[in-house]
Amino acid sequence: MNNLNSHVVGFENAFRVEIEKIKQTKPVQLYEPIAYSLSIGGKRLRPALMLHAASLFAYPSSEALPAAMAIEIFHNFTLLHDDIMDKADVRRGLPTVHKKYSENTAILSGDAMSILAFKYLAQGKIEALPEVLNLFSDTALEVCDGQQMDMDFESSSTVTIEEYLEMIRLKTAVLIASSLKIGALVSNAPLSDANLLYEYGINVGLAFQLQDDWLDVFGDPAIFGKKSGGDICANKKTYLLLRAIEKADQSSLNILNEWIQKKDFDENEKIAAIKGVYEQTEVSAETHQLMVTYQNKALAALDKLAVSDDQKKILQAFALEATERMK
Amino acid sequence: MNNLNSHVVGFENAFRVEIEKIKQTKPVQLYEPIAYSLSIGGKRLRPALMLHAASLFAYPSSEALPAAMAIEIFHNFTLLHDDIMDKADVRRGLPTVHKKYSENTAILSGDAMSILAFKYLAQGKIEALPEVLNLFSDTALEVCDGQQMDMDFESSSTVTIEEYLEMIRLKTAVLIASSLKIGALVSNAPLSDANLLYEYGINVGLAFQLQDDWLDVFGDPAIFGKKSGGDICANKKTYLLLRAIEKADQSSLNILNEWIQKKDFDENEKIAAIKGVYEQTEVSAETHQLMVTYQNKALAALDKLAVSDDQKKILQAFALEATERMK
Repeated sequence: MNNLNSHVVGFENAFRVEIEKIKQTKPVQLYEPIAYSLSIGGKRLRPALMLHAASLFAYPSSEALPAAMAIEIFHNFTLLHDDIMDKADVRRGLPTVHKKYSENTAILSGDAMSILAFKYLAQGKIEALPEVLNLFSDTALEVCDGQQMDMDFESSSTVTIEEYLEMIRLKTAVLIASSLKIGALVSNAPLSDANLLYEYGINVGLAFQLQDDWLDVFGDPAIFGKKSGGDICANKKTYLLLRAIEKADQSSLNILNEWIQKKDFDENEKIAAIKGVYEQTEVSAETHQLMVTYQNKALAALDKLAVSDDQKKILQAFALEATERMK
Repeated sequence: MNNLNSHVVGFENAFRVEIEKIKQTKPVQLYEPIAYSLSIGGKRLRPALMLHAASLFAYPSSEALPAAMAIEIFHNFTLLHDDIMDKADVRRGLPTVHKKYSENTAILSGDAMSILAFKYLAQGKIEALPEVLNLFSDTALEVCDGQQMDMDFESSSTVTIEEYLEMIRLKTAVLIASSLKIGALVSNAPLSDANLLYEYGINVGLAFQLQDDWLDVFGDPAIFGKKSGGDICANKKTYLLLRAIEKADQSSLNILNEWIQKKDFDENEKIAAIKGVYEQTEVSAETHQLMVTYQNKALAALDKLAVSDDQKKILQAFALEATERMK
């Protein structure tokens, strides 16, 4: 993982300089919250993947930096607006923008971040710009589609597993996949390789989100960094829940329905009860199995990539980490 | 005005087909509100100006249509999100998106519209794309800057006329100016002409907004289509108010301050009192004078444009209309 880490660090250093510039931009009431949102951090996974993809085709990472910043700014914009819609007060241990400032500030600063992402993209290599802009705007719309589906699921009682997987593909996987593909496109990689990286990214992204859902239930809060069972308490229709509903016998189904409908409940009791059904229906192992399926698809796409075996090691390791990570 | 009208009609016909496609896009909960927002209408001024600018350089308007749609979608996005921030319930006689649907829908549909604007832009002529994307994203950010300044003014008691003019330049004039400049850029017009059209657009945009402020106070509601005095009731810091504060004698200043600070008031009484001060300080005539100054600057920029006198007639008429219109 050394090299992906080196891209994370390289990106972070350049990004900090940029955030400082953004913070000084006027009107400060608009740009200071943007700088705050961007500096909260996160893993910087998407830009690091983009820089790594560019490096596979011997493209200097400094040239891919504007596009990498574009993708990270866009990602943080979606988090900012999602937090308003989800009424989330805390992100990564700090108050969300609409809590720290105001809802109007969060709306407008988010809007400006989304536009800022396109502005950074425009600074990228001109030759590939039409293709990159097309992919970026299509992907950005898909992320909105995914968020809409996620919101629609809250009030729907008939979500299928297929629909759930399509939702996480749109909300999470496409941005990871496009990060890799844009890295290839700006480097003038063959289109076939750019598409293989996209396919790799979609499958890693799906595995990544399934692991996130799994960690929310079975992860160690001390390592994962979040309280367990948040999805369970919120009746979030994850793969675990949807598959448990499919597999549960009548008495387990009654337990699930009872807890889902309860308005007032002790959180720990609800988590324990539903976790019990997950164990009884063995959906934990099934989720892991599905993750491995996606992981294998990702590795198969990587196999076909026209770069040396040595160059594939980092993305191989990243695919393995997606299903094994504990945080 | 015949020809600008023909661009309005031509654009509207093509746009209606596009809106119908958007309306059918899934998830419908995301795209139906977008189609609603876009079909509410408006004057389609910005796309018509863009198509007209393109036609000045013999560029087929069909080729400039994607960029014209981009600008109209972006403009409607800003109205949609501004309506959330301003808690406005009605736009053009119809419920605003957050009223008709929900605030979350309005946030996310607006986000998707902003991205959709860039997607349409990407369909434009490839040669000019880097320049166009740069100008479009800079302009879009300036519109956000203007909206932020407008919001900041609400709680500030020290807004200067210079700051007010800068705010309307950003919030209104730059998008009109960029519509014209992008029309020129996609047509491969000389950069000097593209810049002259931008200069024309800024000055016409400023005159346009000053006339809008004037109509809000002195316009005939039956013609203007809005109730008079909305800005006065909301203590909106327009040129009229700021200049009246500068010019008023002590007793008029007392009247202004008294009404501005009153929380409970009869709207008609407040409007009559403040309108009285506007008349006493003669700020109506001064506003008109300032509009004419901008109009003349716009016409001077147009004079220098390297197209035939005959080709300039429509933009000359449009500049005159900006200060003479009654709706």
